[in-house]
Amino acid sequence: MIKSIALVGGTHGNEMSGIQLIQNWENQGTPSRFDLLDISLYTANPAAIAANTRFLEEDLNRQFTHAALEEATSSQENELAKTINQQLGPKGASVTDLVVDIHNTTSHMGATLIILDTSDFYVQMARYVKQHMPESNILVEDEKAYLDHGYLCTTGKYGVMIEVGAQPQGVLREDVFLSTQKMAEVLLDFCIAFNNNECGDLPPCEAFRLGENISFPLDEDGNRTAMIHHALQDSDFVPLVTGAPMFRTFDGKDIVWPREETTYPHFINEAAYNKLHVAFATSTLFTL
Amino acid sequence: MIKSIALVGGTHGNEMSGIQLIQNWENQGTPSRFDLLDISLYTANPAAIAANTRFLEEDLNRQFTHAALEEATSSQENELAKTINQQLGPKGASVTDLVVDIHNTTSHMGATLIILDTSDFYVQMARYVKQHMPESNILVEDEKAYLDHGYLCTTGKYGVMIEVGAQPQGVLREDVFLSTQKMAEVLLDFCIAFNNNECGDLPPCEAFRLGENISFPLDEDGNRTAMIHHALQDSDFVPLVTGAPMFRTFDGKDIVWPREETTYPHFINEAAYNKLHVAFATSTLFTL
Repeated sequence: MIKSIALVGGTHGNEMSGIQLIQNWENQGTPSRFDLLDISLYTANPAAIAANTRFLEEDLNRQFTHAALEEATSSQENELAKTINQQLGPKGASVTDLVVDIHNTTSHMGATLIILDTSDFYVQMARYVKQHMPESNILVEDEKAYLDHGYLCTTGKYGVMIEVGAQPQGVLREDVFLSTQKMAEVLLDFCIAFNNNECGDLPPCEAFRLGENISFPLDEDGNRTAMIHHALQDSDFVPLVTGAPMFRTFDGKDIVWPREETTYPHFINEAAYNKLHVAFATSTLFTL
Repeated sequence: MIKSIALVGGTHGNEMSGIQLIQNWENQGTPSRFDLLDISLYTANPAAIAANTRFLEEDLNRQFTHAALEEATSSQENELAKTINQQLGPKGASVTDLVVDIHNTTSHMGATLIILDTSDFYVQMARYVKQHMPESNILVEDEKAYLDHGYLCTTGKYGVMIEVGAQPQGVLREDVFLSTQKMAEVLLDFCIAFNNNECGDLPPCEAFRLGENISFPLDEDGNRTAMIHHALQDSDFVPLVTGAPMFRTFDGKDIVWPREETTYPHFINEAAYNKLHVAFATSTLFTL
């Protein structure tokens, strides 16, 4: 049974759709059909929101490893993570059945549900979301165990992320906001159906399994020599096949996807990964 | 004669197209047809670029009023402005004939040339740009005298801004980068033509004159109650007529443009103005 649910916005202080959704539901209440659920609304990093920045010192959404929660305090966000872990968690023995952490991205990923595990609960959730929101994407990051991730949502017994784009940092777009709200509502509808054992036999769905990060090409001095090719820009989750252009160099040449295997790129040109020279992430398509 | 020209990127540290163009031309040289011109390439705020933020303490591009340049130092950017003014200016008695300051915006403004004065030089420049880049927009901000603006470009004897969008902060998009590069090259081509007295009789062109900022609706507590309507989003410089929707409230109602006069909105949902609750700026269409 999913009794207690925490909906979280503002884990990154410049991702406006989650921040706005939490604020709206705090002011207006959550839709009445969710009165059956024990929902708490949570704004994670008010100081970063006030500063209109992703984080002040360290990325809050990487501070929830066991190690980071146990080490000496390294930053404002690390300290904040310990507080949040006491309130929503503690991780591994949580008082919260499900933590839904709401993000947005500058990449054209549409409404994406990120799950970190493919145990039965998550499979049912993913299939339910895909059935009720066919335009959505399911992204699986299960390269390590659920509790080994550093994400805020892992403070919950179960934890997932909503990731919607394209939306610039510091901007609220109606299309992205409404998609975010819709996915949050579908997740809450799923919890009610799950608790009532009404999910039935949900049909398997398409999902993408995270591969690795692909870096921008750099010269010997570490300067970038190319940008995302216009054919790849805004083409998140569209198959990138052998020989298709992925970068355009600043002197006008194309660099193509060199591998034999088709990949499904995402987080293409995400602003938050720009400083790390991450161009996009790969994934494989499978049936969940 | 336009002899000395400063091309400036990184006035805002998270606007990547100008930063990248200056870096590329520093590494590769400017295109050889511009060898006739005395061009200096300038990166305005390296500390903000390193921090991947618009500014550290104050908006650098508002620090170039006479008052701000003469007052006691109020911030890192105010101090930086005084240094830049010594190098590119000094304002009002400048060693630089033309300062071109390169910006980008999260608004869908395409390639926009911003001029602050409609004296003959700027009129010829605007007409030349529009002739050689018909897809561009000319925005005139002449509500006050050229030297009364606080913009960095006013350190030049002449000064203009390139403003291209839509591009998220911290992201380089190929389409926006190439438009930025094209407009920079067209401006340099214009300088050569102007110096050679080869502009001829340029046909008059359409331009937009800045009106005022329109704010998001707020409740008594200062919380925003609406977002940019999807019909207005990405519709910069498209006529907004009486009764057309401009906001969508969070409870699903439309708020329409109430005035008799059609306006030409721009800087729609610009991230940098989000904290100020500026939704968009108005303008009027005229022939320049």
